[in-house]
Amino acid sequence: MSLESIVKFLTETDKLKLVERHTSPIDSPRKENVAEHSWQLVLMAILLKDYANEKININKVVKMLIIHDLVEIYAGDTFLFDNQNSHDNNDQELHAAKNLYKILPKSNENELYGLWYEFEYGDTPEKHYAKSIDRFAPVLLNFNNKGGTWKKHNISYENLINKLNPINKGSEKLWELTLNYLDKLIQDGHIRCEK
Amino acid sequence: MSLESIVKFLTETDKLKLVERHTSPIDSPRKENVAEHSWQLVLMAILLKDYANEKININKVVKMLIIHDLVEIYAGDTFLFDNQNSHDNNDQELHAAKNLYKILPKSNENELYGLWYEFEYGDTPEKHYAKSIDRFAPVLLNFNNKGGTWKKHNISYENLINKLNPINKGSEKLWELTLNYLDKLIQDGHIRCEK
Repeated sequence: MSLESIVKFLTETDKLKLVERHTSPIDSPRKENVAEHSWQLVLMAILLKDYANEKININKVVKMLIIHDLVEIYAGDTFLFDNQNSHDNNDQELHAAKNLYKILPKSNENELYGLWYEFEYGDTPEKHYAKSIDRFAPVLLNFNNKGGTWKKHNISYENLINKLNPINKGSEKLWELTLNYLDKLIQDGHIRCEK
Repeated sequence: MSLESIVKFLTETDKLKLVERHTSPIDSPRKENVAEHSWQLVLMAILLKDYANEKININKVVKMLIIHDLVEIYAGDTFLFDNQNSHDNNDQELHAAKNLYKILPKSNENELYGLWYEFEYGDTPEKHYAKSIDRFAPVLLNFNNKGGTWKKHNISYENLINKLNPINKGSEKLWELTLNYLDKLIQDGHIRCEK
């Protein structure tokens, strides 16, 4: 019963709308959730594809970004700058991915689990570009929110450069833009200058 | 300056996260917003593509669904069962689409405006399937929310059949499932029976 399994999966993944991230939408006091974040990543990826460092299959990137954070339904979101808990993937997320994707018919399970695994552990042009977009999205929001979460948590320039660096691997052009944004935030006194 | 225009568009369209729909996520008291709704449609479209009535280009459907409601940033969302204001497109949305997409570089503007126009006024397999998914999403949510918005607004079975019917044009299988859900909601006393 393929349809039944897919509908069960779609019902379960509706919960992604209830998983909060640490970033806020532009000019909004509330936190964004992972579902709307995922929507924005796809729109960004489609429009910015010409700025990828490598030749990419954009349709694969789109699928990857739609599902990349589904594991957070079980594993939750970790702040990129959290020193206690690693934002990078761990056993908890691997376990969550297996449990979630096994709801699907086998062929869908294999495809989506494979895309998630590639996003987390792969070394392909699509993974680099998707990661780049994933890191760039909060840059755009925090820049427009005058430092946003970075200002609130007093994140240093050095820490930002370190954690946002994967942008460079996927898109030098977006990295250049990120550095410009950081400079502007320092100039305006929204982030700590330790350059 | 293509990148600058694209970033301006991405900043402007972040507002989609602040446009409320009338449906709630499953088991949540709040209304969903149009950005997370759009994310869900893409996930649905990808997983349910084998149930489309016609042969479709899924990559085109995905792009269409990511951008299909962006005009609501300017035009707002109208409840499907609103008798005063038509949910279907009108001059206000056409005007909104022109104003929004013209922010983009010409080639992106032409592509995305074209996809939006096709979604609203076209007669292609992709439009039929995308519309079908767009109508099916609130069916899944309201079914799981024991009638949800339909119960709250006391929408009749006849009215539901009439407004949800585009599902049938895109996917007979999803229409069959919709009818099963409606039967169950009637049996459980969540929607008015006027069959």
